[in-house]
Amino acid sequence: MSAPRNGDILIVEDNPSDAELTLRALHKARVANGIHVVQDGAEALEFLFAKGAFAGRAGATTQLVLLDLKLPKVDGLEVLRKVKSDPRTKAIPVIVLTSSREEKDLMASYDLGANSFIVKPVESEKFFDAVKEIGLYWLLLNEPAHG
Amino acid sequence: MSAPRNGDILIVEDNPSDAELTLRALHKARVANGIHVVQDGAEALEFLFAKGAFAGRAGATTQLVLLDLKLPKVDGLEVLRKVKSDPRTKAIPVIVLTSSREEKDLMASYDLGANSFIVKPVESEKFFDAVKEIGLYWLLLNEPAHG
Repeated sequence: MSAPRNGDILIVEDNPSDAELTLRALHKARVANGIHVVQDGAEALEFLFAKGAFAGRAGATTQLVLLDLKLPKVDGLEVLRKVKSDPRTKAIPVIVLTSSREEKDLMASYDLGANSFIVKPVESEKFFDAVKEIGLYWLLLNEPAHG
Repeated sequence: MSAPRNGDILIVEDNPSDAELTLRALHKARVANGIHVVQDGAEALEFLFAKGAFAGRAGATTQLVLLDLKLPKVDGLEVLRKVKSDPRTKAIPVIVLTSSREEKDLMASYDLGANSFIVKPVESEKFFDAVKEIGLYWLLLNEPAHG
């Protein structure tokens, strides 16, 4: 089979410097996929369900979501819940990438079906390396579901 | 917080040479966790739920499961279903590691809540590298749930 590996990557991040660092790390990992950054949970849902400003994405696939938890409008756990409870989006790998070290966020994320939970390293260099590793693992090694 | 990262690794694999290669790759990645190999799905469930021969594990945590799909006695998808539908084990990362390239196995695995699906590379060297990468990602980067 081998699934197509050219789906979009969605970064959901309201902190501009974290978003910038994440983008740079993915480019460094030579990711050829389209990368989209949205800054709040409502926009993330529009992107993933091809609604509102993203209605033109209908039929487009998403291969990976990097999801911050503390987000304006709709928070990250609610985005996760919606994505993982809908058969159309459930198989998309969602990696929670957060500065939260709170037990309740960790347990709620796994409970809602997050594929992986990663605490953002505080140092930029380590953050950069972590995102590179996330990109290589989820885009090259993991077998995506067919969109 | 930082969760304990010293839980056991469970390899569920009935092919002895694949199991051996997986073990060697994890050792190469300098994994310090206890590693257990079981050869069928029934034994995997006993290990994870601390029953039968593994009753002594009650209270022990499992940090990672590498799960083959074609297994004697209880098949891999059934193991996955049981692990992901039980609140006691649901947060354990389960990585399907299989030679199956069948669409139905891929979709069923994601549907049942597999954290990741990886097709075993055919060449041993690439298989070895893939397991090393799996070990580094899930044992060092991913934040495990508290057991």
